Amino acid sequence: MPVQDLPPPPSNAAETDDETWVWTQIKAEARHDAESEPALASYLYSTIVSHSSLSRSLSFHLGNKLCSSTLLSTLLYDLFLNTFSSDSSLRSATVADLRAARIRDPACLSFSHCLLNYKGFLALQAHRVAHKLWIQNRKPISLALHSRVSDVFSVDIHPAARIGKGVLLDHATGVVIGETAVVGNNVSILHHVTLGGTGKVGGDRHPKIGDGVLIGAGATVLGNVKIGEGVKIGAGSVVLIDVPPWTTAVGNPARLVGGKEQPKIH
Amino acid sequence: MPVQDLPPPPSNAAETDDETWVWTQIKAEARHDAESEPALASYLYSTIVSHSSLSRSLSFHLGNKLCSSTLLSTLLYDLFLNTFSSDSSLRSATVADLRAARIRDPACLSFSHCLLNYKGFLALQAHRVAHKLWIQNRKPISLALHSRVSDVFSVDIHPAARIGKGVLLDHATGVVIGETAVVGNNVSILHHVTLGGTGKVGGDRHPKIGDGVLIGAGATVLGNVKIGEGVKIGAGSVVLIDVPPWTTAVGNPARLVGGKEQPKIH
Amino acid sequence: MPVQDLPPPPSNAAETDDETWVWTQIKAEARHDAESEPALASYLYSTIVSHSSLSRSLSFHLGNKLCSSTLLSTLLYDLFLNTFSSDSSLRSATVADLRAARIRDPACLSFSHCLLNYKGFLALQAHRVAHKLWIQNRKPISLALHSRVSDVFSVDIHPAARIGKGVLLDHATGVVIGETAVVGNNVSILHHVTLGGTGKVGGDRHPKIGDGVLIGAGATVLGNVKIGEGVKIGAGSVVLIDVPPWTTAVGNPARLVGGKEQPKIH
Amino acid sequence: MPVQDLPPPPSNAAETDDETWVWTQIKAEARHDAESEPALASYLYSTIVSHSSLSRSLSFHLGNKLCSSTLLSTLLYDLFLNTFSSDSSLRSATVADLRAARIRDPACLSFSHCLLNYKGFLALQAHRVAHKLWIQNRKPISLALHSRVSDVFSVDIHPAARIGKGVLLDHATGVVIGETAVVGNNVSILHHVTLGGTGKVGGDRHPKIGDGVLIGAGATVLGNVKIGEGVKIGAGSVVLIDVPPWTTAVGNPARLVGGKEQPKIH
Amino acid sequence: MPVQDLPPPPSNAAETDDETWVWTQIKAEARHDAESEPALASYLYSTIVSHSSLSRSLSFHLGNKLCSSTLLSTLLYDLFLNTFSSDSSLRSATVADLRAARIRDPACLSFSHCLLNYKGFLALQAHRVAHKLWIQNRKPISLALHSRVSDVFSVDIHPAARIGKGVLLDHATGVVIGETAVVGNNVSILHHVTLGGTGKVGGDRHPKIGDGVLIGAGATVLGNVKIGEGVKIGAGSVVLIDVPPWTTAVGNPARLVGGKEQPKIH
Amino acid sequence: MPVQDLPPPPSNAAETDDETWVWTQIKAEARHDAESEPALASYLYSTIVSHSSLSRSLSFHLGNKLCSSTLLSTLLYDLFLNTFSSDSSLRSATVADLRAARIRDPACLSFSHCLLNYKGFLALQAHRVAHKLWIQNRKPISLALHSRVSDVFSVDIHPAARIGKGVLLDHATGVVIGETAVVGNNVSILHHVTLGGTGKVGGDRHPKIGDGVLIGAGATVLGNVKIGEGVKIGAGSVVLIDVPPWTTAVGNPARLVGGKEQPKIH
Repeated sequence: MPVQDLPPPPSNAAETDDETWVWTQIKAEARHDAESEPALASYLYSTIVSHSSLSRSLSFHLGNKLCSSTLLSTLLYDLFLNTFSSDSSLRSATVADLRAARIRDPACLSFSHCLLNYKGFLALQAHRVAHKLWIQNRKPISLALHSRVSDVFSVDIHPAARIGKGVLLDHATGVVIGETAVVGNNVSILHHVTLGGTGKVGGDRHPKIGDGVLIGAGATVLGNVKIGEGVKIGAGSVVLIDVPPWTTAVGNPARLVGGKEQPKIH
Repeated sequence: MPVQDLPPPPSNAAETDDETWVWTQIKAEARHDAESEPALASYLYSTIVSHSSLSRSLSFHLGNKLCSSTLLSTLLYDLFLNTFSSDSSLRSATVADLRAARIRDPACLSFSHCLLNYKGFLALQAHRVAHKLWIQNRKPISLALHSRVSDVFSVDIHPAARIGKGVLLDHATGVVIGETAVVGNNVSILHHVTLGGTGKVGGDRHPKIGDGVLIGAGATVLGNVKIGEGVKIGAGSVVLIDVPPWTTAVGNPARLVGGKEQPKIH
Repeated sequence: MPVQDLPPPPSNAAETDDETWVWTQIKAEARHDAESEPALASYLYSTIVSHSSLSRSLSFHLGNKLCSSTLLSTLLYDLFLNTFSSDSSLRSATVADLRAARIRDPACLSFSHCLLNYKGFLALQAHRVAHKLWIQNRKPISLALHSRVSDVFSVDIHPAARIGKGVLLDHATGVVIGETAVVGNNVSILHHVTLGGTGKVGGDRHPKIGDGVLIGAGATVLGNVKIGEGVKIGAGSVVLIDVPPWTTAVGNPARLVGGKEQPKIH
Repeated sequence: MPVQDLPPPPSNAAETDDETWVWTQIKAEARHDAESEPALASYLYSTIVSHSSLSRSLSFHLGNKLCSSTLLSTLLYDLFLNTFSSDSSLRSATVADLRAARIRDPACLSFSHCLLNYKGFLALQAHRVAHKLWIQNRKPISLALHSRVSDVFSVDIHPAARIGKGVLLDHATGVVIGETAVVGNNVSILHHVTLGGTGKVGGDRHPKIGDGVLIGAGATVLGNVKIGEGVKIGAGSVVLIDVPPWTTAVGNPARLVGGKEQPKIH
Repeated sequence: MPVQDLPPPPSNAAETDDETWVWTQIKAEARHDAESEPALASYLYSTIVSHSSLSRSLSFHLGNKLCSSTLLSTLLYDLFLNTFSSDSSLRSATVADLRAARIRDPACLSFSHCLLNYKGFLALQAHRVAHKLWIQNRKPISLALHSRVSDVFSVDIHPAARIGKGVLLDHATGVVIGETAVVGNNVSILHHVTLGGTGKVGGDRHPKIGDGVLIGAGATVLGNVKIGEGVKIGAGSVVLIDVPPWTTAVGNPARLVGGKEQPKIH
Repeated sequence: MPVQDLPPPPSNAAETDDETWVWTQIKAEARHDAESEPALASYLYSTIVSHSSLSRSLSFHLGNKLCSSTLLSTLLYDLFLNTFSSDSSLRSATVADLRAARIRDPACLSFSHCLLNYKGFLALQAHRVAHKLWIQNRKPISLALHSRVSDVFSVDIHPAARIGKGVLLDHATGVVIGETAVVGNNVSILHHVTLGGTGKVGGDRHPKIGDGVLIGAGATVLGNVKIGEGVKIGAGSVVLIDVPPWTTAVGNPARLVGGKEQPKIH
């Protein structure tokens, strides 16, 4: 969807207002879709319309997506709801991620479309909860969550990895982000992207991705390298070196190309 | 399996006859397997032998594969069955896809093997239904189906994409095909292949793949480029340009190589 | 985790002792985790602590992970348990694979972490059972298992492929290993790696991987090529040729680089 | 609900019109309830509102209620839908049963309340299908259905028993109706009622219940006895003899009491 | 269990203290059982030990017992938890019911035994929630809950019925309690007991049961009759008349017998 | 089915031979039914035909019937299989119960019909396992099993109760048998029968039922009374006294009637 079609956020909105505004949009979208498509109404009501907040809807949806016969949906629902409820920064990250998909992905039709269907968005929200559990030193449950996300969405983000806000994981299948990786705000990462380590040594061994970076499909960034703000990395590139801000890296191994003449890299 | 071992289709067969013939084969294969392997008999009877047509069997199988706790199998079964029943072109595409796997994949042992086990085949049939719903402007349910296919099979074909008949998605994990992509008839696409867009602009932004094209594992084709009939694209290639018919493209970025000396690219 | 932190195996341990020792460790880890995280205790008890052997625990876990509405968990549990119980070489391979993850993956915190959460480990154990069924000529059930592993874990190892012991599939999403491939002992394979065929011919058409090889993320090895002992293949490489022992191959198409100056390739 | 509050059926309505009229009422009730109770909306949409006919809604509801891990909901849905679709007398019996509950049970608030929640109504509709399968000599599936109804609803009606239209099984738990029993039209049967045989002889050995009979809670009628039109049988009675029309039987063993002075027996 | 074996409640305990004390007992019992029976540990941890309060444990257990494919466990869990959390009188009734089973049922081994296994106890707690929803005029969801309880536990208590505290439904199968029935405190009701209406008139038409009444198995009490405090009703009795306090009624129809010579009636 | 139609057991058959013979019959029946009714073939194969012994088939069937979201089918399957495998007297009781249904119930068409569909038979086999666990002092799991049987089948047999062989629970809904009850061999018990205690005292407080007794529907036998060999108890009777052998008891309270003139009591 072209950017100009996106409804503007209310000016001077506080974070809570923003969350409320987005949630109101989502419910309206879901009601509209339920009316036009009765076969989907049950799904839309149970997942969105019947809930009183975005956190509840998201917790319900993730609980049902990630549950298994040995990890019950009620347990996961409780875990997600408690975590989202007690941390407003998680909730504002969720809203920023929804906005990122809505603005940056031309195929994203609506906020509810992203909330319901985008495995990258859902995997990222589950990661945010797993990361919070990790830093609370609740590692076993954090890793169990990580494992379910990898099974269900084929998205493998180590719970220790730090991910900023407004991040878009587009298509998302096959994304792998290692333990000591850091991803800035407003980053876009396509499918099959690896932010990996090198060799079997421990310690700080994964990439640091600056704000506003765009990483094309199938790109592999390895080692504790620094990818500067605004960098673009071409599809299929293999990056083993630091990339300065506002430049573009393409190829295997990747070489830097000038900022002006940025090739198509999506 | 070598091509010459494949039973020939009946000469002068009309499409319906062909569907009937393939369905008869599949039931015979399943009965044979059920007898030789009692532990699998229940699965084979419920999924194949108990059904009166290929459409019913496929609808049942897809409904059970793609259902979730909020999208019930009965709902999906109904949706698939109604769509396949009312559109014979969908049914003939299914038969052509079965034949494609049987002829072009040496590891494909039988039609029933493909019907039961090939995630590429199953994802493609679900896509055909989602595409029909999309062009009927039933976008929310079309996208819900798309999302389930991406979760369950790790195959992400936008419901708006137009895919021909006799298409083989081999291994299939990680295939991503964008909204405005077009894929011709008798195309073979290996796993991790991306037919993607460039940048965040909307509009017609994805590749157009001609008939009989073969795209190797991990290849990435980006932008509204034209890949001519009979082209071969090497594994791991990144293609950003048009490729003329009957040529081969390899490398990152891809370069064209002559038709005669086509390298091994699977 | 650094190698030196790993508890040493008992000296002169027979295989059975080793299995017992590892299982004792796993139960102790699970009990400890259950105590520290009550929300996970039910999962840990049902999957690990309540079982009398590693084979039972693994069979239960795989049965629950791989079951579907038409392939019941009890059937799969029976199948796994019978196969593991009757073949000690499968059990020792499982132990070797657990050790491989524990030693070679810095992010692997414990044996139980690997048993519960590593899709690569779980997919490999299911493959070992499918392979045994394949060589007993029980192809239909072998292929059904293969299909479930590909759906659930996005790991696609043809049941005919022969895989050694002490193998680590790290992250694992998107790994594809073809029908006539052979993988040696102590091999490490990252995610998105393909050991594929070339073209549609049948016969022996997939790579032969020597002992101790390391294949980086996204690498593609095609055709009946021989990858020698101790070889390292760089991330994103496309290998179409034999690679001699103790060398490194990088790039698309891959070129060989000297043993001393081995680049970072993980 | 008092009888006078019930909306009158359209005068001179053909059966199909009546079915349509009731179905329209049910959908309106369900929409109203969904609006007033969002937590129930998903349930109401999936079970009622999303369906195009009463037969589809009922088949979906029964399929979900009666399915098990070995008798899938899709199979049962198909079975119910095919049977209801092909036999209008079944559909008119369903409508008559709905009307019976609505008129005769003061606690029945609406048609949708009965359709969703009355185990007696649901068990009876499943019996009607099982009976049809029985007389088609499809005994194994008929008995499987019978068994599921007995498990799920604690209502045990032998599939060979012939039951009239407009029958109310109120509360229904524990009702047992034997193989050669016949129940007329407009009969009301409370919970724990047995229409049983005597001894182990085969043949015609169960009661014949006339039109308009009312059988109180816990009553037991045994043997091939004839219970005349309009008879009332008191709660807890044990009836081993014929009862002439328009009389009342009470006690253990039951004695007849005069028509005028009929005691309250519900 | 003999009454004298029951641990005494803390003297002067406030209701909250009592709830806390019972919950502490239950967790200790469950931990003990989990240790002695590993096969049950997962069940005990998920249902009891992992929860922070009796309300959470009970809500989880009821949600899992009463859920269906169209009424998800997460929805029911939320509904139960919100209702119990917001109403301390419900919680104190739960505790009183647990004590009633523990004291009055010789077969009740422990509080946790009752909480986990007693369908009468569980049905009654679900009824208390359904009743609260009913008086809040949330009738559709109240009746849906009623229906699930009747399906799962074969206990049919109309949500409008008013039930006191410290009530024991022993064995419970087949209990039916009508819309306008009232049951006092410390009442014991055996299985197959009906507190029913007479005829099809609406209005106040069901029995009023005084405090401390004991109603034997299979007894039927019909109509708006008053059963006085301390009354005992014999098994299989049919009661159509008022019964004065501290008397015993037996037979069909029931006759009153003197207080001293009370027969065994259980 | 008339008695004379039953195939005779092999003369001088040892118990194991008898078990084998019955199992052979059951598999043949199931194969025949699967052929005549494809819709049921999957159910018949998974429950019967795919298994190698009656114990495995029964364990599978009970595990699937009695499992819940917190008591997994694999756990129950293991529990049943281990218990049946290790105790041949349980297996011979199962065979005797199958024969009892086949001979004494005119509506029983075949052994497989009983194995699949008779809730009384299934509840009794589960009780036999629960009883064995009880006498091994594994009370918590024994009571959990008891609770599931009461939920699923509405049959409530305390695990401590001792039940003989060749017992038929016909229809079975609502049967309640107390903790210290004893039931002899070749007893037939209809639905809604209570073998209950009196009052709240502990100790030996339930009926002792002799061999060959027949207890009619809805009969209630209370207290530590002795019901002699060959006694018949009429439907709806309330028995509070000893009944001498070969007599008949009817009524509420029950009175004895002569042996010759035995009334119809089923």
